Amino acid sequence: MMKNIKISTTNCGIKYKNRDDLLLITFPHTANIAGVFTKTSMPAAPVSFCKKNIKNGKAKALIVNAGNANAFTGKVGEEIVNKTVQKICESLNCKEEEVFVSSTGVIGEIFNVDLITNAIPNLVKNSINDESMWDKASRAIMTTDTKPKLVKKSCKVKGEDITLIGFAKGSGMIAPNMATMLSYVFTDANISSEVLQILLKDSVEKSFNAITVDSDTSTNDTLLLFATCEAKNEIKNIDDSISEFKNALDELTLELAKMVVVDGEGAKKLIEIEVVGASAEFEAKTVAFAIANSPLVKTAIAGCDPNWGRIIMAVGKSCDKTSPEKVTVKIGDFQLTKNGAKHPDYLESKVHDYLKNSEVKIFVDLGIGAKENSATVWTCDLNEEYIKINKDYRT
Amino acid sequence: MMKNIKISTTNCGIKYKNRDDLLLITFPHTANIAGVFTKTSMPAAPVSFCKKNIKNGKAKALIVNAGNANAFTGKVGEEIVNKTVQKICESLNCKEEEVFVSSTGVIGEIFNVDLITNAIPNLVKNSINDESMWDKASRAIMTTDTKPKLVKKSCKVKGEDITLIGFAKGSGMIAPNMATMLSYVFTDANISSEVLQILLKDSVEKSFNAITVDSDTSTNDTLLLFATCEAKNEIKNIDDSISEFKNALDELTLELAKMVVVDGEGAKKLIEIEVVGASAEFEAKTVAFAIANSPLVKTAIAGCDPNWGRIIMAVGKSCDKTSPEKVTVKIGDFQLTKNGAKHPDYLESKVHDYLKNSEVKIFVDLGIGAKENSATVWTCDLNEEYIKINKDYRT
Repeated sequence: MMKNIKISTTNCGIKYKNRDDLLLITFPHTANIAGVFTKTSMPAAPVSFCKKNIKNGKAKALIVNAGNANAFTGKVGEEIVNKTVQKICESLNCKEEEVFVSSTGVIGEIFNVDLITNAIPNLVKNSINDESMWDKASRAIMTTDTKPKLVKKSCKVKGEDITLIGFAKGSGMIAPNMATMLSYVFTDANISSEVLQILLKDSVEKSFNAITVDSDTSTNDTLLLFATCEAKNEIKNIDDSISEFKNALDELTLELAKMVVVDGEGAKKLIEIEVVGASAEFEAKTVAFAIANSPLVKTAIAGCDPNWGRIIMAVGKSCDKTSPEKVTVKIGDFQLTKNGAKHPDYLESKVHDYLKNSEVKIFVDLGIGAKENSATVWTCDLNEEYIKINKDYRT
Repeated sequence: MMKNIKISTTNCGIKYKNRDDLLLITFPHTANIAGVFTKTSMPAAPVSFCKKNIKNGKAKALIVNAGNANAFTGKVGEEIVNKTVQKICESLNCKEEEVFVSSTGVIGEIFNVDLITNAIPNLVKNSINDESMWDKASRAIMTTDTKPKLVKKSCKVKGEDITLIGFAKGSGMIAPNMATMLSYVFTDANISSEVLQILLKDSVEKSFNAITVDSDTSTNDTLLLFATCEAKNEIKNIDDSISEFKNALDELTLELAKMVVVDGEGAKKLIEIEVVGASAEFEAKTVAFAIANSPLVKTAIAGCDPNWGRIIMAVGKSCDKTSPEKVTVKIGDFQLTKNGAKHPDYLESKVHDYLKNSEVKIFVDLGIGAKENSATVWTCDLNEEYIKINKDYRT
């Protein structure tokens, strides 16, 4: 394990019993940090706090609670963050701008900050540098998640062995521009916060910003990337020396993002949607998300029903430049359309069988631009479980 | 009943048994006609045909089948329309440009046009001018609808008594820019097709284009307005003389639109969402639809759960100009927010009780512009029934 990281978790009792719901991660020698956040105009108090601090690029501590989002909580919400941060600063002897806070859970409810501040001294005291703590950390931030999401990668940077480890939570309010999604990635690479920020933004576009469970966007989405800088060779510019690191980071964020989709509330299937031949990359992503967010497409796949007319519907509503004759739709390897109608060789029973798989691919060629004007997004099926989970979330 | 209308229905067996699924309406003395259609780039064959004919503004016949959408059916789909129209022209001795065709049902499947053409001679022979036929007409076009949707209004135009009668079908793929929605409105007013077109477009913006069941837009949406011109006073311009007619038409389309929402697949509740105080009307409608299309908001209401944080979430993701302190949210008469936090007087149990009603109102003041920059849209709750209906639609 990277040495400049200490982790501890505990139950503070904001919502959950019999499980840890508070996580503290500290960096004794300070880490470089980059971050991306929800684009909502209703950011939770901890998000506003982090957005301010991220500009300094340095981190001493991260604290995350599950069970309450501290969102739309007004002045009281800001006080909760401030008291939490003050307590951490006292305990660790660090500055406010080096502390990062996240919350996840229900919106608009106030909780007693003492539950957190009273727990902090013991969290600090018990924090350890031990490989086993990653699993505990990934579990302490869960809400409606059914499983923890933890990914590890390794690569070489200028000859040195580098580790990346990341974990995430999220299973509802998952949509482009982040999600009810919290994710934290750690590396021992020695990379400046400016370079980390560029790498992270780019990585997010094709991972966390390419997934959707229900088209809803949360007030709390946060993705932070910490570099403990234990490696000897310092990286201050983007050049070939970090291409392996970039690939490892991209793989890691994509794996985590897919884990979030697969764990989408009630989800049974991972659906990959690739759209090519658009007039621009942006248009390809718009169409891909129109398909991914269509409840009719998602329920059809839940029922293994090759009702591909619903894919045509989603293309038609999201792209006004194409037309039936130009469009090609595939499910798996099965081409469904030709010349603006059902393909003559289409066999419904075969596609029905294919849709029984836990991973399903939809391919659309819009036929109006270069194949490279493409986008791939991921979503999950929509079934009765989603409704059950979300009808009864708080009761 | 207006005299210049004859109606007949039959079972032609495209999909349904033991119910009528084919409707013919004829206008012996020709009617003026206006129409609005789906904005999809994948229009069904009958939609493309009607869009061409609507420019002439004259109608002799309307034929509608339920059970197959004739959408994404290529050349064969066009032939189905052409053969249907030819048969009607032969039987009624009218011109192709005076015939209007609609289809609703599954997309991408071909059907045997003989089922329709063989039925036409008897449909023509049996068509009658009788009040009881409106109910039959409204039932013959149903697909997953659980009830027929028929509305009647009366008004005065230049001293004459005028009748409007309309019916609609639709319960899935309902979203702005029309829906899997077919609707036909008839009046004995003597109004030019140019004036009808202006009135219809305006009326649709605040009715059918202000409803959503699942954010999906169909390939077949069609709304046609026929004027049999039996009234003596001819209307060729928009002036005060038709203000009563305009109001009656607006009421009629809104009532039909709400009936479509209430019959949304599996729906148990009608949800009205009013957004005011936006920087422009367009922005108010965007935010209203973001709330209306949020699966999380819709499932919460299905469960009578006053999880208003989800409304905040939807506002946050759809409007970047507002902020927590500016926003006011009400459910029914209960103000939920104040100064960017939960209202001090908020009582969850009362809102929970209110949400047990079959009609529920959500009000949002964005606090960034004039109160008049507003929009009202309607949707339904999202529950397990929607999933069941759409998982198994074709199997």
